[in-house]
Amino acid sequence: MSEVITSTANPRIKNYRKLRDRKYRTESGLFAVEGLRIVAEAIEDHWPITELIIASELNTSSYMNDLIEQAQKSKISILNVSADVFRSLSIKDGPKGVAAVLSQQWGSMQMITRAGGMWIGLDRIQDPGNLGTILRTADSVGARGIVLIDDCTDPFDPTAVRASMGALFSIPVVKTSAKQLIELIQTANLQAIGTSDSGSTDFRKPVYNQDMLLLMGSERQGLSQPLQDVCSELVFIPMQGKSDSLNLAVATAICAYEIYRQNNPLSEG
Amino acid sequence: MSEVITSTANPRIKNYRKLRDRKYRTESGLFAVEGLRIVAEAIEDHWPITELIIASELNTSSYMNDLIEQAQKSKISILNVSADVFRSLSIKDGPKGVAAVLSQQWGSMQMITRAGGMWIGLDRIQDPGNLGTILRTADSVGARGIVLIDDCTDPFDPTAVRASMGALFSIPVVKTSAKQLIELIQTANLQAIGTSDSGSTDFRKPVYNQDMLLLMGSERQGLSQPLQDVCSELVFIPMQGKSDSLNLAVATAICAYEIYRQNNPLSEG
Repeated sequence: MSEVITSTANPRIKNYRKLRDRKYRTESGLFAVEGLRIVAEAIEDHWPITELIIASELNTSSYMNDLIEQAQKSKISILNVSADVFRSLSIKDGPKGVAAVLSQQWGSMQMITRAGGMWIGLDRIQDPGNLGTILRTADSVGARGIVLIDDCTDPFDPTAVRASMGALFSIPVVKTSAKQLIELIQTANLQAIGTSDSGSTDFRKPVYNQDMLLLMGSERQGLSQPLQDVCSELVFIPMQGKSDSLNLAVATAICAYEIYRQNNPLSEG
Repeated sequence: MSEVITSTANPRIKNYRKLRDRKYRTESGLFAVEGLRIVAEAIEDHWPITELIIASELNTSSYMNDLIEQAQKSKISILNVSADVFRSLSIKDGPKGVAAVLSQQWGSMQMITRAGGMWIGLDRIQDPGNLGTILRTADSVGARGIVLIDDCTDPFDPTAVRASMGALFSIPVVKTSAKQLIELIQTANLQAIGTSDSGSTDFRKPVYNQDMLLLMGSERQGLSQPLQDVCSELVFIPMQGKSDSLNLAVATAICAYEIYRQNNPLSEG
């Protein structure tokens, strides 16, 4: 085994900790993940890993050995650290001794029309937990990707990564402006259906195409007017109680599963 | 105006801060909420408020004056504090100078059969954010209440309260054991439908009664075997991608809106 880093002031360890800040993530094009399962998924999905960080003292499971073996096969650089150093970079209660630095990967605008299928556009979404949960739902419902519109929270934020439960590695995320997206919708004649408190159509009513874009507004402000204007329908989810809104990740899931339902009807019997 | 408390060591202020701990909340039967909107909702819903905490320096809006007036009418005790004292008890980024101590209210087992309608049972749910989000969804979908089964997170946890967006005040929460709930299901012949990864029925297939109990398992372990055994159906939500599960609040919402859909069909035209 190579040398074990025992100083929390080691520059590579300091850089890892800096990845908690969005500014540094954006500048470096990197992000951090922690935990055996998520690191294993990153390797499996061939996500570019720049560094694997291992504290053998904290984990003697056979999974760990398998992971190290797999990383060596994939020629991933491994940094061995002491338990104390690992704890200094961990954001978990019971650190399990596995973390990694990964390169950020972004999808391109061309993917939206090329890949077809259901895409979910999020207009200025602010909560990283919501974004991660929506990534997880998008994967489950068979959506092709997520479009982040204008100033959104960061999908590589540790809270988003954790909530996505690995879906971040399989669902492409495209970043764009409302202006560019509206151009694409018009040029490609893409079906865009948006949600709004003031929508006039029950979300169960429209006929959703197989290739389409579901547009969801931000937690506080909803969908911007230009994006509302480009939608062929504005739908609402019926509410019974005092609440005038649902959690954004919940509302997205309810609409996405309606689209799934129309394209995957129940067989009789 | 009465005396303004300027010491963060004041015993009433210390007690407020202690309400962050579940142990103290349970012992005292109290909990804390913060923010103009949620305090106004508590007053509106006639939730028993033991103390209103106001930092006039932090909020000079007319809403604040209305709130104080309403509190005085309802004979709620008001504690005036300095901005610094308020910041010491606040869990928000930009404290708005309004908080309250409330009495916990719990529903009774009798309500489940008496009130009828849709109830959502949560088996050992651990995440307070999920619980709060499920309360918010329950209110929206017109569910009658939530049943917390065995060791669950606390609905009066600040994270749950915040995520519920006021639904905590309108949706009754009943606390019970799996054993007692199973007895009730059998005695009342209540339709219980549970969700499980290993369920054999698509969630869209069962005929959901108007009076019924939807059972959801914990984030990590799912629904316990005795609860699975008492269900007339175990349903699954179809998944397309790599994910083998959805976020618990998301899965609950998808099932609850299916039940809503069956009882509220779309009108033609």
